[in-house]
Amino acid sequence: LVGIDWGTTSARAYRLDAAGDVADERQAPLGIQQVREGAFVDALNSLLGDWADDPAPRLACGMIGSRQGWIEAPYVECPAPLDTVATRLMRTSDGGLAIVPGVCCRDAQHVPDVMRGEETQILGALTDDAHAMLIVLPGTHSKWAIAAGRTIVTFTSYMTGEIFAVLKAHSILGRMIPAASPAHSEAAFARGARDASAPGVAPGALLHRLFGARTLALFDEIAADEIADYLSGLLIGSEIAAGREWADRNGIASNTVTLVGASALCDRYATALRNSGIGATMGPRDAAARGLWRIAQRAGILR
Amino acid sequence: LVGIDWGTTSARAYRLDAAGDVADERQAPLGIQQVREGAFVDALNSLLGDWADDPAPRLACGMIGSRQGWIEAPYVECPAPLDTVATRLMRTSDGGLAIVPGVCCRDAQHVPDVMRGEETQILGALTDDAHAMLIVLPGTHSKWAIAAGRTIVTFTSYMTGEIFAVLKAHSILGRMIPAASPAHSEAAFARGARDASAPGVAPGALLHRLFGARTLALFDEIAADEIADYLSGLLIGSEIAAGREWADRNGIASNTVTLVGASALCDRYATALRNSGIGATMGPRDAAARGLWRIAQRAGILR
Repeated sequence: LVGIDWGTTSARAYRLDAAGDVADERQAPLGIQQVREGAFVDALNSLLGDWADDPAPRLACGMIGSRQGWIEAPYVECPAPLDTVATRLMRTSDGGLAIVPGVCCRDAQHVPDVMRGEETQILGALTDDAHAMLIVLPGTHSKWAIAAGRTIVTFTSYMTGEIFAVLKAHSILGRMIPAASPAHSEAAFARGARDASAPGVAPGALLHRLFGARTLALFDEIAADEIADYLSGLLIGSEIAAGREWADRNGIASNTVTLVGASALCDRYATALRNSGIGATMGPRDAAARGLWRIAQRAGILR
Repeated sequence: LVGIDWGTTSARAYRLDAAGDVADERQAPLGIQQVREGAFVDALNSLLGDWADDPAPRLACGMIGSRQGWIEAPYVECPAPLDTVATRLMRTSDGGLAIVPGVCCRDAQHVPDVMRGEETQILGALTDDAHAMLIVLPGTHSKWAIAAGRTIVTFTSYMTGEIFAVLKAHSILGRMIPAASPAHSEAAFARGARDASAPGVAPGALLHRLFGARTLALFDEIAADEIADYLSGLLIGSEIAAGREWADRNGIASNTVTLVGASALCDRYATALRNSGIGATMGPRDAAARGLWRIAQRAGILR
C-alpha cells in the first residue's frame, strides 16, 4: 500500500510492506492550500517521486477529502465503526486514489464537529483491547475522542493550537514577547496550566485568564520570555480541564489518556496531564500509516 | 478644567465649564503608540489646538500614565476610593499636566489585574445611590467592576474584544468570512450568546465552541456572512456568563448592570445581557469627563 496523510499545509506518504509495516516515508509541503487550480495529479506525482511507478493501491486521508480537496468524501456520522469508514471510501475520477471520509458528530448544544485525517490516526492507534479508550490528538484543532472496539464513539475539538498561534503573532500578548526565541520555561508552563485548572468557573473565564499573561509580566511575576510558555500552559491546561469534563459527561474515565501526534507537543500535553493527575501514554508514532493499512484491509483494496 | 482621556490609539480632550459640564470636546489619533520619541508636549498641543492657551488646569487619564506613557502613575490597589485616586495624581516634569493613576487588584488565583482610564469612567458613572453597582465597560479588554459609595471595590478583565479582532483578522474563522461587510445578523449573534451560556463546563470549553463557528458554517447552519456575528455572540455571551459568576462570588447581585462605553458595542452587550435575564441600563455617555471632573474636585486642582 502507498498511504498518504494529505493535510492543509503538507503531505506525507508511506510505503507499507505486505505485513503493514512502514518500509519508507517521504514528506512535501504540498498541502491542499499549496495546490493551484486543482493540480492534484501533479502534486501527487511530485510527492511520490520514484514511487509513482509502484503498482500498489493508494489510499489517502485528511483535507484532500474536503470540499477544498481533490474530491469530497462526505463525513461518516458517529458512532463511526472502522467497517463503515472503509465502505465509504471515495475514488478520484481517474480511479487512481481512494480517499478516506472524515467523521462528524454533534455536541451537547447540537453544534456539529468534524475531523479529517484524525479518524485514520485514531483507527490506527486503537489496540485490540476491548476497553474504551480516551485518545487525544494535540494540534491546531486538538481532538479528544472516545473509541471502543474498532469504533469512534464520539469526539470533540478545541482550537487550542490556533488560538496560541494567533495570540502569539497578533495580540498584545505577542507584542510583549521578545523576538529572540527563549529557552522553554517549564515553571511558566506549569503555572499557566495550574491557573487554567481552577475549578468551577464559566468558559468565559478563559478570556480573563488570557489577560493574566499580560499582567503577570507587567508585575514582573513572570519574565517577558516566559509569556509564551505561560500562555501555552493556560491554553493546554484549559483544554485538558474541558476535555476531562467532556469525557466524564460521556461516561468514560479520564484517568488515562493516549496521546497521538508530534512528540514535542505530546510531551507538553503529557506534562500538563500528569500534573493534573491524569496518566498519559504515547500512542504509535505512525498512527496515520497504521490506520490507512487497517482501512485498506477492511475495504479489500489490498491485493 | 481641560480633561483628557489619553489611550493607546487615540486621545480625546474635554473642556469643562465651572459646573463640570462638557462645553466642548475634540479627538485626535494621538494615542501613546502614535507619539514618537516621547514628544508628548507636541502631541498635547496638537490635540488641544487653540485651547492650548487656556489657563485652566489639565488632568489626563488612561495609558498616558503607563510605563510607555508620559510619566508612570503607579497603580492604586483595590479597594480604591475616589479620595485615594485623587491624592495619587502624578505631574509631568513641566508641571503642566496631572495624570490619574491606574487601579489594580488580584483575582482568586492571585493573578494581578489592571485598568487605566476605566477607573476614571467608573468614578464618573457612579450615582450617589448608596447601593453597590455592577459596572461593565465593554471593549478590547472589557472590565467588570463593583463600586460602592465612591470606591472601586474590585474588578476583572476579559480579552473579549481583542480575541474577536485577532480571530476575525487572522484565523480560519476569519478566512471563512466574506470580504464584503454584511448586515448585522441578530439571529446569529443571539445563537452565539445562547451557545456560550450553556451551564456547567470548564473555561476550556470556549476553545471548543470557537471551533463551532466554523462547523456551523460548514454544515450551512449559519451563513458565511453570519460567522462574525455568531463569533461575537459566543465571545460576549461567554464574558457575560463568566462575569455573572464573578459577581456572584464577589457578593453582588448580577440582576442589573450599568454599561459604560461606545453605544454600538453597549447595545450588543445590552441585548445579550437581557437575553440571559440581566437588566442593562446605560451609564452616562461622557463618563470619562465626569470622572476627571470629580477627581480634579477632590484633588483640589480646580481654581
